[in-house]
Amino acid sequence: MDISAVNALSYEDFVNIFGNVVEKCPLITAAVWTSRPFISLNALEATINEFIDALPESGKEGILRCHPDLAGRDLHSGTLTRESREEQARAGMDALSTAEASRVARLNEEYKRRFGFPFVICARTTDKTRILRELSERCQNARAAEMARGIEEVKKICRLRLQGLVLSDAPNKL
Amino acid sequence: MDISAVNALSYEDFVNIFGNVVEKCPLITAAVWTSRPFISLNALEATINEFIDALPESGKEGILRCHPDLAGRDLHSGTLTRESREEQARAGMDALSTAEASRVARLNEEYKRRFGFPFVICARTTDKTRILRELSERCQNARAAEMARGIEEVKKICRLRLQGLVLSDAPNKL
Repeated sequence: MDISAVNALSYEDFVNIFGNVVEKCPLITAAVWTSRPFISLNALEATINEFIDALPESGKEGILRCHPDLAGRDLHSGTLTRESREEQARAGMDALSTAEASRVARLNEEYKRRFGFPFVICARTTDKTRILRELSERCQNARAAEMARGIEEVKKICRLRLQGLVLSDAPNKL
Repeated sequence: MDISAVNALSYEDFVNIFGNVVEKCPLITAAVWTSRPFISLNALEATINEFIDALPESGKEGILRCHPDLAGRDLHSGTLTRESREEQARAGMDALSTAEASRVARLNEEYKRRFGFPFVICARTTDKTRILRELSERCQNARAAEMARGIEEVKKICRLRLQGLVLSDAPNKL
């Protein structure tokens, strides 16, 4: 699908296709449909990012709280969204050793107790070793820094999910 | 569950329980958790309404676009949320005559083409006859009036869903 096909979608098809580019936040996708036509994939992405940036702090925390724990309950019970499942699996989070799994569970709990939202990381651009190191390090951050960092990661995840759905803006696009 | 039990919930349990008080918008529920403790069910409801009111117009349209059509595709394919299914069934929307069903389908399409979001009504406080009349009448409204009206209906739906989950603030509460 190229950007002109995206622009031709009804809001229903648009939300069906792009509703999870921000995890469990179809509200955001449904809101940006108002801004069509988009001149490019980058323009669609920028509109989503602007919508997120304009939310009050509580709204940004709300976005983070819609994200599942890494290697958490949803992974084990099979209730992750398709996108999250693929991303976590690709980073090896579905194949942790018992020791790793209990370390991740402990750090996830510590992180959530400290900040009131879950640790969010763009798993597709990293790997298990770095995820475990970051989870441990980011538990030490100040809350405001961690909020900003979590939202940055949300935007990276969104970009990769969009790129998986729309042909890029390369000059040779079909 | 009374309001003190609500205030004791982790954000995960809070979102699991209240995540659909605004249809398919767990972002809103997850955002208002930041404002706990709530002194009453009314205070929780007011916080949700304030969050909605503070959204840009596109965000309000986004909320409406997360709602299913009345007696539409999701009802027939069994993909409505539990809450919507019960509300539509109670209003008799799952038992339309062939003539009624095709009239609703035609008016839903007209409404969506005209406004770019679906017709939203609090089905639990009305009935089939009035819904069909309103759907027809509201198609004639100005867009801004219809947006405001749709959001009012979203808030009514939210209030009733909250009341189904939390004991009311009556003095004799258990």
